[in-house]
Amino acid sequence: MSIITLTSDFGNLDYRVSAVKGKILSLNSKVTIVDITHDIQAFNLIQTSYIVRNAHKYFPKGSIHILAVDSFFHKSRKNILYNANGSYFLAADNGLLSLVFFDIKPEAIYEITLNNRFDDIVNFTSTDVFVPAAVHLANGGLPEVIGRKIDTVKELFFPKPVYNEPERMIIGEVMYIDNFGNIISNINKEIFESTGKGYDNFTIKFRNLTLSKIFQSHTEVVSDWERETEYHGQSAAIFNDSQLLELTIYKGSKKNGAKSLFGLNVGENIYIQFF
Amino acid sequence: MSIITLTSDFGNLDYRVSAVKGKILSLNSKVTIVDITHDIQAFNLIQTSYIVRNAHKYFPKGSIHILAVDSFFHKSRKNILYNANGSYFLAADNGLLSLVFFDIKPEAIYEITLNNRFDDIVNFTSTDVFVPAAVHLANGGLPEVIGRKIDTVKELFFPKPVYNEPERMIIGEVMYIDNFGNIISNINKEIFESTGKGYDNFTIKFRNLTLSKIFQSHTEVVSDWERETEYHGQSAAIFNDSQLLELTIYKGSKKNGAKSLFGLNVGENIYIQFF
Amino acid sequence: MSIITLTSDFGNLDYRVSAVKGKILSLNSKVTIVDITHDIQAFNLIQTSYIVRNAHKYFPKGSIHILAVDSFFHKSRKNILYNANGSYFLAADNGLLSLVFFDIKPEAIYEITLNNRFDDIVNFTSTDVFVPAAVHLANGGLPEVIGRKIDTVKELFFPKPVYNEPERMIIGEVMYIDNFGNIISNINKEIFESTGKGYDNFTIKFRNLTLSKIFQSHTEVVSDWERETEYHGQSAAIFNDSQLLELTIYKGSKKNGAKSLFGLNVGENIYIQFF
Repeated sequence: MSIITLTSDFGNLDYRVSAVKGKILSLNSKVTIVDITHDIQAFNLIQTSYIVRNAHKYFPKGSIHILAVDSFFHKSRKNILYNANGSYFLAADNGLLSLVFFDIKPEAIYEITLNNRFDDIVNFTSTDVFVPAAVHLANGGLPEVIGRKIDTVKELFFPKPVYNEPERMIIGEVMYIDNFGNIISNINKEIFESTGKGYDNFTIKFRNLTLSKIFQSHTEVVSDWERETEYHGQSAAIFNDSQLLELTIYKGSKKNGAKSLFGLNVGENIYIQFF
Repeated sequence: MSIITLTSDFGNLDYRVSAVKGKILSLNSKVTIVDITHDIQAFNLIQTSYIVRNAHKYFPKGSIHILAVDSFFHKSRKNILYNANGSYFLAADNGLLSLVFFDIKPEAIYEITLNNRFDDIVNFTSTDVFVPAAVHLANGGLPEVIGRKIDTVKELFFPKPVYNEPERMIIGEVMYIDNFGNIISNINKEIFESTGKGYDNFTIKFRNLTLSKIFQSHTEVVSDWERETEYHGQSAAIFNDSQLLELTIYKGSKKNGAKSLFGLNVGENIYIQFF
Repeated sequence: MSIITLTSDFGNLDYRVSAVKGKILSLNSKVTIVDITHDIQAFNLIQTSYIVRNAHKYFPKGSIHILAVDSFFHKSRKNILYNANGSYFLAADNGLLSLVFFDIKPEAIYEITLNNRFDDIVNFTSTDVFVPAAVHLANGGLPEVIGRKIDTVKELFFPKPVYNEPERMIIGEVMYIDNFGNIISNINKEIFESTGKGYDNFTIKFRNLTLSKIFQSHTEVVSDWERETEYHGQSAAIFNDSQLLELTIYKGSKKNGAKSLFGLNVGENIYIQFF
C-alpha cells in the first residue's frame, strides 16, 4: 500500500485539500493519504522546507511527497520531481526542494512532463499535474515515463550564520517559530562547536535576554523531577532534533504558531559570544 | 472500498468529528473517510454549499457525502438524502442541498427514515442518523431501505446579480472569501458575456478600486515569468474554476479565511459597468 | 484492521503529528489512523480528558488511543498504558488517564517498559515510546511484552461542585468551553437531582444572568419548529450527553474554541439555587 503525503498552504477551510484527495482516490482508491500540514504561511518556502525536512524521515522509503506551496501553474515554470533519500518529492521549480535537500544530493531530478506546459488542461497544478504523477509512482510506475531527467533547478539558500572573529561572536537569526512558540535558529551545533573551540564560556544573546547553557532536550532543564512545576516558565536553549539552536520557555503555554514565546520574529538576530 | 466524506462546522477541537469517524469505523472498518472541512462558519449554508459544490466533483462516483451543518436533531425536521451526479449527499432538510444543486436536477431525493423522528434514540444527528444511513449505502445497500422518496424539500436561493439597464451596470455581491483572502462574487461568466454584448469596454468597481481586465487564471497576470516578483501585490479579476468573478491580489500573502485581501466582507456589492 | 487514534497539543502546523503517523505506517502500513484532535491547549489535561472521555466511546473495542499531551520524555517519569473499557490508552504518567477514567476502574494498568527510561534513544516520546508500543498492540501483541503491571499512577482530580446547605445552593464551575462557545460545567445531573429533592424551583446564576429551566437537547428550546428563527439567540441550560450542565445560546454563532458565548472563562463559578 503506497503512501502519498500532502504539504500545502491551502488551509483546511477551502475545497482545495479535498480536491487533491478526491482526485488521488479517483485514480487509485487504495493509496494511503497523510497530511503533513496545510497551515503553511502563504508562499513560505523556508517554513515548508523546515517541516518537510523533519517530517519525511519518519515515513517509509518509497513514500511520495507532494509539496503544493507556491505552485500556481505557469507555462514558463517547470514542475519537478526529486528522487532523494529513497522517496519521491513533487513541487514546482521554485527552489523549495533545493532548500529541503540543501545538504543531500538527490539520486535523480526530473522535470515532470505529464500534463505540464499545457495551460489549456491545467487549471490547478496539484490535481492536474502532481496527483496523476504521484499516483503513477504509487502504482509502481517509473519516473522516466512521466518526466525527463534534468541537471539544474532553481536554487534558493538559507541565510547562514556568520562568525565575527574580532568580536568572537556567531551571528545567526530566527528561521522558524513552531506551533508552541519555540524559536528555531539557523545556528547549528557544528558551527557552535568548531568556532567555540578554545573558549571556556559563551553567552547566547537575543533581545535583552541572555542564556549561558545549552541543553540536549526540553526536559533536561528539570534536574529534579519531583519539583517539576518549579521549572515552569524557565528560559532555555536547546540543540533540537535537527541539531539547530532552539530557544524555549519550559512549559511556556503560549501556543500560536506565529508569534514566539519571547516576542521574537523570523529574521531577528541571535548572537553567541565566546569568552 | 467506499468513500464517505465529512463536511461540518464542528471545528477540529471537540470530540464531535472523531465521534463521527469512530461510529463509521465501528460499523464498517474498511470505509475510507475523507474530511472536506470542519471549519465552516457556524450554521453557514452558503459557505458550505460553495465548498461541497466544488469539492465533490473530484471524488469517485458512488462516494457518500455527509454535510453536518445546521443539523441539530428536531422531530419536526426531516433529514434527507440526494442521489445526484452519481453520488449520495446526506443533510438536514434545511435548504443546504438545494443550494449545492441549484442548477442540477438530482436523480432522486429521499427522506431518511432510519432512526429519524425518534428523539429518544437520536442525541446527535450525525452519529445516530447520517452515519448508519451512510454506512448502509457504503455497503451497497439501497436508499429505499433507509428512506422514502419525496418530491419537495426546503429550498434556499443564492442572492442573484441584477442588471441595471439604464446604468449599463451588473450589480453583484461578495458570496465567499476563501482561505487566501480571495473574494468570490456571485457574478458568473454567462451574465457578464450576455449583458456585455455590444459594448467594447467595462470597469469592475468595488470600494474605491477599479479593474478593467478579467484574467483566466492567477498566473495569467504574469506575462513575463522571468520578472515574476514584479507582479507581486498586483490586483486582478479572474473567472475562476466555477466561472465566477473572483477578485485577488497576486501573491497577496494575507491568509486568514475570514477577511478578504481588499477588506471586503461577504454581502458587499461589486459592480461591472459597460461602456 | 486495527485503529490507532491520536490526541495531542501539537497543533497542525509542525511536523510532530506527521512524524507520529509516518512512524506508525513505517511499522505497520495497514493501521487505520484517526485524529481525535491536535488543538488541545498546550499541556491542558482537563480539556484532553473531557474530549477523550467523550470520543473514545464511539470507536470499536480494541482501538488504541495515544494521548500525547504533557508527554516530554524525562527519565524520572513513567509512560503508562491503561486497558479500560475494552480498549488501550497510552499516556505519560501525568494524571491524565486518572481524569479520563475518574469513575471507571481499568482492567489493568501497565508501565510501558519498551524503550522507556533510556534517554539516549528517546528523543520524542510519541514516536519512540507510544508508537512502537501502540503498533505492538495493533498487531495483536500482549501488553505484558512491552510493559509491566503496576498498581498506582499519578492521580489528578476534577474540581467538584459543592453544596452550600444554608444557602440551598450548588456551587460549580466552568470546566470546558467547546468549539461553538458552549460552556460545560462540572455540575452533573445526579448532584442536581439529589440535592434538589424537596424543592419546587431553582435558578441557575452566572455573571449577571439567570436561567430557570434545563432542557434535554439543543433543539428542545424550539417548541414550534415553524418559527425556528425566532429562537435564535435564546439562552438555555442543557444536560448534555455526558449529563453535565451546559450553558448555550441557541444558534449563537460565535465559534472560537477559547472564549465562551457568555464571556465566561474556565474556572468561573456557576450557581444553582433551589427554593
